[in-house]
Amino acid sequence: MDARTGFPVVGMVGGGQLARMTHQAAVALGQSLHVLAVSADEPAPLVSPNVTLGHHTDLDALRAFAAGCDVLTFDHEHVPTEHLRALVAEGVAVHPGPDALVHAQDKLVMRHKLAGLGLPIPEFAEVTEVADVLKFGFPCVLKAARGGYDGRGVWMLDSAADAESAVPDLLAAGTPLLVEQRVDMRRELAALVARSPFGQGACWPLVETVQRAGICVEVLAPAPDLAPERAEAAQELALRVANALGVVGVLAVELFETEDGVVVNELAMRPHNSGHWTIEGARTSQFEQHLRAVLDYPLGATDPVAPAVVMANVLGAPVAPQMGPDERLHHLFARFRDAHVHLYGKQERPGRKIGHVTLLGASMADVRPRAALAAHWLSHGEWLDGYDIH
Amino acid sequence: MDARTGFPVVGMVGGGQLARMTHQAAVALGQSLHVLAVSADEPAPLVSPNVTLGHHTDLDALRAFAAGCDVLTFDHEHVPTEHLRALVAEGVAVHPGPDALVHAQDKLVMRHKLAGLGLPIPEFAEVTEVADVLKFGFPCVLKAARGGYDGRGVWMLDSAADAESAVPDLLAAGTPLLVEQRVDMRRELAALVARSPFGQGACWPLVETVQRAGICVEVLAPAPDLAPERAEAAQELALRVANALGVVGVLAVELFETEDGVVVNELAMRPHNSGHWTIEGARTSQFEQHLRAVLDYPLGATDPVAPAVVMANVLGAPVAPQMGPDERLHHLFARFRDAHVHLYGKQERPGRKIGHVTLLGASMADVRPRAALAAHWLSHGEWLDGYDIH
Repeated sequence: MDARTGFPVVGMVGGGQLARMTHQAAVALGQSLHVLAVSADEPAPLVSPNVTLGHHTDLDALRAFAAGCDVLTFDHEHVPTEHLRALVAEGVAVHPGPDALVHAQDKLVMRHKLAGLGLPIPEFAEVTEVADVLKFGFPCVLKAARGGYDGRGVWMLDSAADAESAVPDLLAAGTPLLVEQRVDMRRELAALVARSPFGQGACWPLVETVQRAGICVEVLAPAPDLAPERAEAAQELALRVANALGVVGVLAVELFETEDGVVVNELAMRPHNSGHWTIEGARTSQFEQHLRAVLDYPLGATDPVAPAVVMANVLGAPVAPQMGPDERLHHLFARFRDAHVHLYGKQERPGRKIGHVTLLGASMADVRPRAALAAHWLSHGEWLDGYDIH
Repeated sequence: MDARTGFPVVGMVGGGQLARMTHQAAVALGQSLHVLAVSADEPAPLVSPNVTLGHHTDLDALRAFAAGCDVLTFDHEHVPTEHLRALVAEGVAVHPGPDALVHAQDKLVMRHKLAGLGLPIPEFAEVTEVADVLKFGFPCVLKAARGGYDGRGVWMLDSAADAESAVPDLLAAGTPLLVEQRVDMRRELAALVARSPFGQGACWPLVETVQRAGICVEVLAPAPDLAPERAEAAQELALRVANALGVVGVLAVELFETEDGVVVNELAMRPHNSGHWTIEGARTSQFEQHLRAVLDYPLGATDPVAPAVVMANVLGAPVAPQMGPDERLHHLFARFRDAHVHLYGKQERPGRKIGHVTLLGASMADVRPRAALAAHWLSHGEWLDGYDIH
């Protein structure tokens, strides 16, 4: 408890953009987010005064950080599960706790758990030798059980030759692997929910996440042309996962939509890229909601505030634009006076998420092209006129 | 220019809640607000890492702070005009500049200027001796030309005896004084606009500001039952003031509504309490807009996002509630799941603005009682059931 303010202190492990935006939400609640970051020039340390430098894999650093906080939460999934168990054993409040978080850290643990719950998932198998993949059949998807993100740690295998060229090196490097059925999907969706320690749940409208080269480029809220009963079923699925796993905080369930319904792809237990649209687009943002859950406050209303909301990621361009970010922002605001811009203070590198843009409007047809143009402009310093979303 | 981020550095003089909320807006724009504060436990230094401690009346402190910034702006009006002129002479970009800001610092200068522009103001006169007040007549309002806020520096005089008891001591203490006609008003309104260095102007819908004991307690957006032509005239008046005075940033024009129209009460050249509703209630918040203006970015859309928005100030209660702020917030969220809360990290003292609550909805009749109940609860730790806004 911060004796001066009378509020518990929330500490977030990780100093990326999720911590940065959570700090903005914390400020409104009378707080200042405490951050454990590896480097002082990460997005969150640049904007919060309550920063501890240390590595999230260093138990002593975690312990020292936790000593100044009432509750620990996360900007990413990279804290070793055993460190979190050690902290919990020492009396630290960790939300989500290690028994929940492990399902976002380890895809094999997650797959077994969801299978046990009877939830729709792709067929999968653990891989401890090449033969496991050959037996599973092709085409298939090979995944690192731990550590992958944004398309890393995922390999498409079409043949035995592919498997024999990829698997032995990965196993030799100690990468835990699983293989999954390649799902014949129409598109990707995400169900974003939050759960409090008391068990209260709340869910935002289901969204479509548009991927390019394994990286999310756009989020459409609500997911266009989605049958209401399918959206509801997906929301119920996500709430069921949150309850069954004992999640505290925001849970993002990444889904594949197939002909027959949805299949769970990945889980994330923290504010998630698929929920950035909620900052302006929903009554309560995912960042405030995550804090409310972690603080055991009642959860906020999740209603959308416009019929169509699009969030487009600003990704570092292949070649850095000649025009600096300040000048690009100037031009952006001249063209789109209603664009909501979020820049993360990150150096521009090709493909890196350096910010996002959100637009709200009456219809997807109006909003989506504008969001895409805005994000592309901020990335590349060029206008994609004639841009067509189809 | 911050070489790392590629953005100019904005420095705000003053570390209060306006700087705190401006920091939240700066973070979205890829920045971190630099703050000159008197003490490290003010609202903004609690949440920004870029803090210089120093007094805003100390020219050397201002100079040292300005050296690390590309543009200076303000959380309050208390920087001596001559210091700002000195900084401008040394090449510092100051927005709003001293020639504009003096009209928010000195009511006598402001009254003369607005009179010269032919704008509607109360009758007024400078007071250098008691005789000036006696000659002006009663009832009247005596005002300190500089330094007043939230009802301080304002005295209602009903008789010569009142004047003779108040004026000599004030003059002896060196307080510059003016006397004004007591306006027969229906209510108070505020016109909030922004102006860029390039001369672009933008205005939000006109609001009603509800005062109690000289302190604003509620802001109703848009002002209920206001004739559209009167609202437009007031907006035009505010834009005209912004242009005539060369304001850069947000300008709040506090107005009295009379039978015949509006009369200008005060000016503020910074984000203002009457504009806190814009954080959730308008497409662009006053805090982002102030930054855009100061950075010479094109201004953002000012459309409201709901038919009725009410902001209620959370004022320190006469007796501090037994229940701490964390528990009060918990109960608030349990009752009002759509309440937007902003707490400033300030110690609770009677009458002090420690936060605000904003509610959005379909009608004033729905939103206003809920906002008032929410703010009273956060202040007092008691529910005013049976509350009636009329």
